[in-house]
Amino acid sequence: MSAPPSVETLIELMAKLPGLGPRSARRAVLHLLRKRSLLLLPLADLLTEVARTARECVTCGNIATEDQCPICTDPRRATGVICVVEDVADLWAMERTGAFKGRYHVLGGTLSALDDIGPEDLGLPKLSRRITDEGVSEVILALNATVDGLTTAHYIADLLEDGVLVTSLAQGVPVGGELDYLDDGTIGAALKARGRV
Amino acid sequence: MSAPPSVETLIELMAKLPGLGPRSARRAVLHLLRKRSLLLLPLADLLTEVARTARECVTCGNIATEDQCPICTDPRRATGVICVVEDVADLWAMERTGAFKGRYHVLGGTLSALDDIGPEDLGLPKLSRRITDEGVSEVILALNATVDGLTTAHYIADLLEDGVLVTSLAQGVPVGGELDYLDDGTIGAALKARGRV
Ligand SMILES: [Zn+2]
Ligand SMILES: [Zn+2]
Repeated sequence: MSAPPSVETLIELMAKLPGLGPRSARRAVLHLLRKRSLLLLPLADLLTEVARTARECVTCGNIATEDQCPICTDPRRATGVICVVEDVADLWAMERTGAFKGRYHVLGGTLSALDDIGPEDLGLPKLSRRITDEGVSEVILALNATVDGLTTAHYIADLLEDGVLVTSLAQGVPVGGELDYLDDGTIGAALKARGRV
Repeated sequence: MSAPPSVETLIELMAKLPGLGPRSARRAVLHLLRKRSLLLLPLADLLTEVARTARECVTCGNIATEDQCPICTDPRRATGVICVVEDVADLWAMERTGAFKGRYHVLGGTLSALDDIGPEDLGLPKLSRRITDEGVSEVILALNATVDGLTTAHYIADLLEDGVLVTSLAQGVPVGGELDYLDDGTIGAALKARGRV
């Protein structure tokens, strides 16, 4: 062992982060040690704080430090439109476009017979309740243009068709593409040109 | 703001790590939030511990949590040979080869008139003292094969030539290459074939 055990373990943990391998984890840890007061200490404190406070928004599934997330508690945002996304990264990708001013619903995945993920696992009964409780007039499906995403979109459209207008992002999302990989302009254009499912 | 302020700030800090950009920092933070007990909490605790305890080994400049690093306090390692490296990442790269069983001296950079880095900044007076105090018979220069690395190697060879055998890693290190980017086999072979400077 060439470094102290705590530093070795830190490198091993960092290497488990997506985007970092063993080599970049070593570089990252050395960088942190060189920037102790500017980076290492603030990062340690923030991780501790986030570990203590972060949870799922009880309403939409976004990350929150209170019961509800900043979007669900923002009085300036429209309550009549809900945008349905697969995961929190997609919600954040939508938000970066600045093109959507309503509320969200994070599924946390897609329907999958293989992985035994059913409607309850995605909070679809809760989505139905929200549509009634919040007087929602439109549900925008912003799911990934994958087979699972499309299957899930059709299921939700069938489920909700009687009570509410269900739309989806326009073609413009590349086939097989995932939302979080697209540039903001593409997502914004697809949102504007959304069509009825 | 789509995430709580603490989470947004955490993403900004993570994006400052080498190897992570804004997008991979967001992915990393969502990954941490999904693995709270397995990854987020241990990482927060370890960063806090490392921030509190990690420092430079007073002898060699490696990362240590005591006054001296695990290598300097290992009684099984030879004391007669010192391997001089530019930074801690290079020391760790040497150690991964398992080919060297002596001690180290970390320069923390190379001589540079441009950046006003002189022999004192690299701990060269301390290296001279160590050669006397520790009864060193050989100094192996394992510097990067860059212009600054070669300049520094020649300076050290001139400085030490009277009292000790000064060798350098064999040709085999690609011209312009940096140690930490090489595979272990290449470093090991270059160490074995080291020649007098
Ligand atoms: Zn929310
Ligand atoms: Zn040491």
